[in-house]
Amino acid sequence: MFDVSPLLPEGTPAPSARWSGFPDYNFVGGHIDRATVPVDDLRAAVDRALARDGHDIATYRMQSGPLGYTPLRTFVADKLKRYAGIETTAEDILLTSGSLQAIDLINKLLLRPGDTVIVEESNYGGTLSKLRALGVNMVPVPLDAEGMRMDALETTLDDLAAQGITPKYIFAIVTVHNPTGTILPLDRRHRLLELAKNHGVPVFEDECYSDLTWANTRPPALRALDDSGLVIHIGSFSKTVGPALRVGYINADWPVLGRLVALKTDAGSPVLEQMMLAEYGPAHFDAHVRHCNAVLESKLDAMIDAVNEHFGTTVEFTRPPGGIFLWLKLPEGVTTPRLAEVAGQQGVAVNPGPDWSLQYDADRWIRLCFANPPVETIRDGVAKLAAICHDEFGVPEISGNVRR
Amino acid sequence: MFDVSPLLPEGTPAPSARWSGFPDYNFVGGHIDRATVPVDDLRAAVDRALARDGHDIATYRMQSGPLGYTPLRTFVADKLKRYAGIETTAEDILLTSGSLQAIDLINKLLLRPGDTVIVEESNYGGTLSKLRALGVNMVPVPLDAEGMRMDALETTLDDLAAQGITPKYIFAIVTVHNPTGTILPLDRRHRLLELAKNHGVPVFEDECYSDLTWANTRPPALRALDDSGLVIHIGSFSKTVGPALRVGYINADWPVLGRLVALKTDAGSPVLEQMMLAEYGPAHFDAHVRHCNAVLESKLDAMIDAVNEHFGTTVEFTRPPGGIFLWLKLPEGVTTPRLAEVAGQQGVAVNPGPDWSLQYDADRWIRLCFANPPVETIRDGVAKLAAICHDEFGVPEISGNVRR
Repeated sequence: MFDVSPLLPEGTPAPSARWSGFPDYNFVGGHIDRATVPVDDLRAAVDRALARDGHDIATYRMQSGPLGYTPLRTFVADKLKRYAGIETTAEDILLTSGSLQAIDLINKLLLRPGDTVIVEESNYGGTLSKLRALGVNMVPVPLDAEGMRMDALETTLDDLAAQGITPKYIFAIVTVHNPTGTILPLDRRHRLLELAKNHGVPVFEDECYSDLTWANTRPPALRALDDSGLVIHIGSFSKTVGPALRVGYINADWPVLGRLVALKTDAGSPVLEQMMLAEYGPAHFDAHVRHCNAVLESKLDAMIDAVNEHFGTTVEFTRPPGGIFLWLKLPEGVTTPRLAEVAGQQGVAVNPGPDWSLQYDADRWIRLCFANPPVETIRDGVAKLAAICHDEFGVPEISGNVRR
Repeated sequence: MFDVSPLLPEGTPAPSARWSGFPDYNFVGGHIDRATVPVDDLRAAVDRALARDGHDIATYRMQSGPLGYTPLRTFVADKLKRYAGIETTAEDILLTSGSLQAIDLINKLLLRPGDTVIVEESNYGGTLSKLRALGVNMVPVPLDAEGMRMDALETTLDDLAAQGITPKYIFAIVTVHNPTGTILPLDRRHRLLELAKNHGVPVFEDECYSDLTWANTRPPALRALDDSGLVIHIGSFSKTVGPALRVGYINADWPVLGRLVALKTDAGSPVLEQMMLAEYGPAHFDAHVRHCNAVLESKLDAMIDAVNEHFGTTVEFTRPPGGIFLWLKLPEGVTTPRLAEVAGQQGVAVNPGPDWSLQYDADRWIRLCFANPPVETIRDGVAKLAAICHDEFGVPEISGNVRR
């Protein structure tokens, strides 16, 4: 057989293992509730869109050009106004293959190895791993129960300025933070923009979870509070309609967006999802999101009940006001990378803290996604996780009112 | 306003111009015939697939894992066997966001700046521009009327070996070559594989156009003729169903494919197109492709008629046995980059040779896509192109039997 390995660049990893399906108790990844996927409305939507514009798939990007399917950009502009207070138009929105591609494009435009960026100390794992791979210096800003601390951001910016360093951006998940679930209050938003503007640093606002709030309201986006072009805003339909669709978007002023378009060399993102969402959105999106939020809140409560029952007072968490994650602090003595490894072997998948946080005690934390598993599975999985944790670390000593 | 430019890496281009729609006479790009897009069958297909598996979009990549939607991989494996003679299974196929992503992944795995690859002298423009951007040394092999010349390939491999250089791959579009339209005969295919194997060089086989032959038959793919894992094979549904769908695939042995999977960090390609094609393919693909080929051949003939009428004997070309392009040599004195520029200003878009060829006289050639414009537009556009060519270069002197 031909051996490719002599031709591979140094450090190329071995081939992946073959995929063997999802774990029984899957608390990782940004998966959503299966039942809430509005299959019938989506079927009707894609059918109408294909009936109207189907022959346009004969050309790359249909008749819409490099920004993506115009009717979906129109809906996104409308949604951004109504949900996030952003005044924009379809001409300043670039549709992407999920918000992952949005992050890649923005990083490709702005970052080179050795550059510096400011990030929330706990963060989306994908952002951290991408920045690491790019050889970028990440300066973390601590969070409290309301999100990024503005005193710490100010100190960080001042310290970097004293070193002659202008960070390339401040990456901020201000509306339903990943993984903590916090929503940054309005006064902090104004302060963040003021600090960023004073230091000439763009703000990279990631709002993938922002539609998912139990109160069905939220403060205006950072991009809504700035009219100077300081903010690059990204979002996604992954958490509201379905992650497998891979539809995200970037909203930014043309000096940035027009350069991102030039870097998007994929001949356009696939259009069928864009057509479907464009047709689905105006009639159904608002009611759908409210329904999702009710379902998600009930699943969160089921998870919290299970955590209280099986972990008791040995764990700490704040009930998030939205999103799909519970960010949980385990007792002293537990190291979550080890817990994740052992639990994974027994069919319980959890994200260990160090993948999602740069904070000093990151290995005490885990991230649990409560959106996808049925309530019964949430209960059983949390019980099983507590049992595994006890077997491995001796805690929690009491689960379900029973001393182990 | 905030000025991002001080933060941009050196050499960052200016923002793109706003898109202003397709030109009136659009002979560029891999667009296909609008009427052949099988809209009604696609509507029925996506509806059935969503009805069955729609709730699975709640998880990244549905229930199929990182290779992509299993039913489409199953159809691709079947199609590769029946059309190209490749014995493979769904487990050795990776679905991608168009074949562009396939090319990017393979390049990312194998290439680093300074590496050497062998390419057909005239070639897909996207391949040439990607390799240039990667800082890779391209060694061109000349073509004749049957495709890549094996004597030249042998000399090239020997010369490189004498310099101690092992090329990272031979990039080969052997079945309906882009832009020349040639189909490499079987004996040359065997010889190509023999040479590649003797030199330990993988073959990167791009078959995006291979289903489009007027005879509805073709020789076995290079990958079908090799059982040693030497060949990495890519293909696409862009030219048979629609380029806006962005569905491509890679077929390779696991030592390569399992590494490409690991490099595909986009959380999966969008699934809706995959679902639709998986449902559409088994019942309709074969008859659809035959219908497309008949339509395309008639459009090719319309273009050849128009070229003969308006350019007469001043141009040279070979009638391609398939595909969507006519590769046309203009008379002495014409430089096609200039022709493309002037014609573009007047609404006639053509690809100038130097974007698609490394050969010495590349600037005498243009590539014309005949698939997308209606026959009437083909006729008018070719007439207009001849008039523009005459105005700019004084040739052709006779068009439509009339001396200008």
